[in-house]
Amino acid sequence: MSLLVVGSVAFDAVKTPYGKTDRILGGAATYFSLSASFFTQLRVIAVVGEDFTEKEEQVFRARNIDISGIVREKGKSFFWSGEYGENVNEAKTLDTQLGVFGSFNPQVPDKFKESEYLFLANIDPVLQVSVRKQMPHAKFVGGDTMNYWIGGHRQNVATMLQNVNALLINDSEARMLAHDPSLARAAHKILAMGPQALVIKHGEYGATVFFRDGAYGMSKHPFRAPTLPIEAVTDPTGAGDSFAGGFMGYIASQQNLNREIFKRAMFYGGVMGSFSVEAFGTERLQKLTREEIDERYKIFRELTHLE
Amino acid sequence: MSLLVVGSVAFDAVKTPYGKTDRILGGAATYFSLSASFFTQLRVIAVVGEDFTEKEEQVFRARNIDISGIVREKGKSFFWSGEYGENVNEAKTLDTQLGVFGSFNPQVPDKFKESEYLFLANIDPVLQVSVRKQMPHAKFVGGDTMNYWIGGHRQNVATMLQNVNALLINDSEARMLAHDPSLARAAHKILAMGPQALVIKHGEYGATVFFRDGAYGMSKHPFRAPTLPIEAVTDPTGAGDSFAGGFMGYIASQQNLNREIFKRAMFYGGVMGSFSVEAFGTERLQKLTREEIDERYKIFRELTHLE
Repeated sequence: MSLLVVGSVAFDAVKTPYGKTDRILGGAATYFSLSASFFTQLRVIAVVGEDFTEKEEQVFRARNIDISGIVREKGKSFFWSGEYGENVNEAKTLDTQLGVFGSFNPQVPDKFKESEYLFLANIDPVLQVSVRKQMPHAKFVGGDTMNYWIGGHRQNVATMLQNVNALLINDSEARMLAHDPSLARAAHKILAMGPQALVIKHGEYGATVFFRDGAYGMSKHPFRAPTLPIEAVTDPTGAGDSFAGGFMGYIASQQNLNREIFKRAMFYGGVMGSFSVEAFGTERLQKLTREEIDERYKIFRELTHLE
Repeated sequence: MSLLVVGSVAFDAVKTPYGKTDRILGGAATYFSLSASFFTQLRVIAVVGEDFTEKEEQVFRARNIDISGIVREKGKSFFWSGEYGENVNEAKTLDTQLGVFGSFNPQVPDKFKESEYLFLANIDPVLQVSVRKQMPHAKFVGGDTMNYWIGGHRQNVATMLQNVNALLINDSEARMLAHDPSLARAAHKILAMGPQALVIKHGEYGATVFFRDGAYGMSKHPFRAPTLPIEAVTDPTGAGDSFAGGFMGYIASQQNLNREIFKRAMFYGGVMGSFSVEAFGTERLQKLTREEIDERYKIFRELTHLE
């Protein structure tokens, strides 16, 4: 089944304790679609500038990703420059140039409208809702957001929450959204705002999914997926989007959505995030094989299962 | 099999967002022994002052803990006063009065010397090594330490590491001890300093155990135990010691020590820590039943296991 993602396709300049890059392919929709492409057929809606060339297109095509929804406009692509210190969970933004992304107004091509799975990567929540409305047949919709929208556009985020089945955010975003320092309480408050499932990503500690009572046949208890303790986190950029790609990609590859599928999706999310950070940018995801993914999935099981 | 613990038996005054207490029973050896007593026979070595009365003794006796090794001296018991803000992982110490604990020089009574399991709670590493030397028959020794000893008495901590089978510390202590911000790298550096196993406690994110190559038949991969996401962490004091009690207590209750036992011990550690924080001081541990422990163990499995 096909999975449509709407979000940024961009260029990044990243500095970490392990090195630096001047300008490499990045963006949430890029990491998401590369990651998810190991599980299902991907379609991308994004806007890029004239600096987006055949070379970048090839990265998507090599993974059989449909990029006919990536619109090219006069100007430059979204550019982000950031630096990570020893705390790999927190990026310091050095520069952001919106470029053509500043006037992004995503339109879903007719041929994409039958996609049953949709992921709304981190963009203006008004645009997320607009895309959702253009996809009336989507049976499972995931969404992301960030502190900028939660702080300054709370009402629009609340509307977006009414339009997604699952929200995927990190610890600090969950606390900010719920105005509550307790993650367990924050989770219940956020679920009351709309989504049936809430995935909270804990960086190097894994991720937890919380459910509304009875949703997807889940018990009242959350489910927690680990990450692999990695000695050298070369570049954390895109880890959360790669997690979301593994999570949504696996769900989209399955006939039904139930408790078991959700749990496996959490594991695949963690697996994809753990690969992503092993090299700069999308390098590791580009070289990855399904065999490596399945191998690491087994290690995740070994990391957490009693027998 | 019997488990001997050496550490502090104290009084605490604690303030958290959920309330405050003026002076309640506390101390690492107290939390540890109450927690471990659900799994095996406990013996405690500690020093207390004249303020330690029949009322406090009764807390230990109710759990069938042998306190004949608790020496009473002229003066006051160790007293700690602390406050927790919204970040339950970090206590702000308001007051510390060592009292009779300042001249603690633990001597192991002859009748305790055949104990096969020993836990060296957080005290001066010189005293930890002294106790270890008095217990030549101990077949498995766990130890704890803290930033104070790591920062100011590093060489003594290094000697202690040569004298324990397992070290149990938290994230920041592991990073400080190894001079390395990466937990995975820090773990390998600490294991090279002596212990066969290193348990790193992540607070609300659970705990990970790392092993020296081949130790206890473990694979090269670590094992991670969860915690239960708790809405109201009433009092985090003693959570780490309660974890250690569940971990060591379960190990001491088993005939052999292998990979499976280690993994279950990690789960029991997490279970006991999760109970401890539900009420002030030792209140929850005092009221606990083995049935509740086994029930939560099942929930921990449900939280983490794919099927």
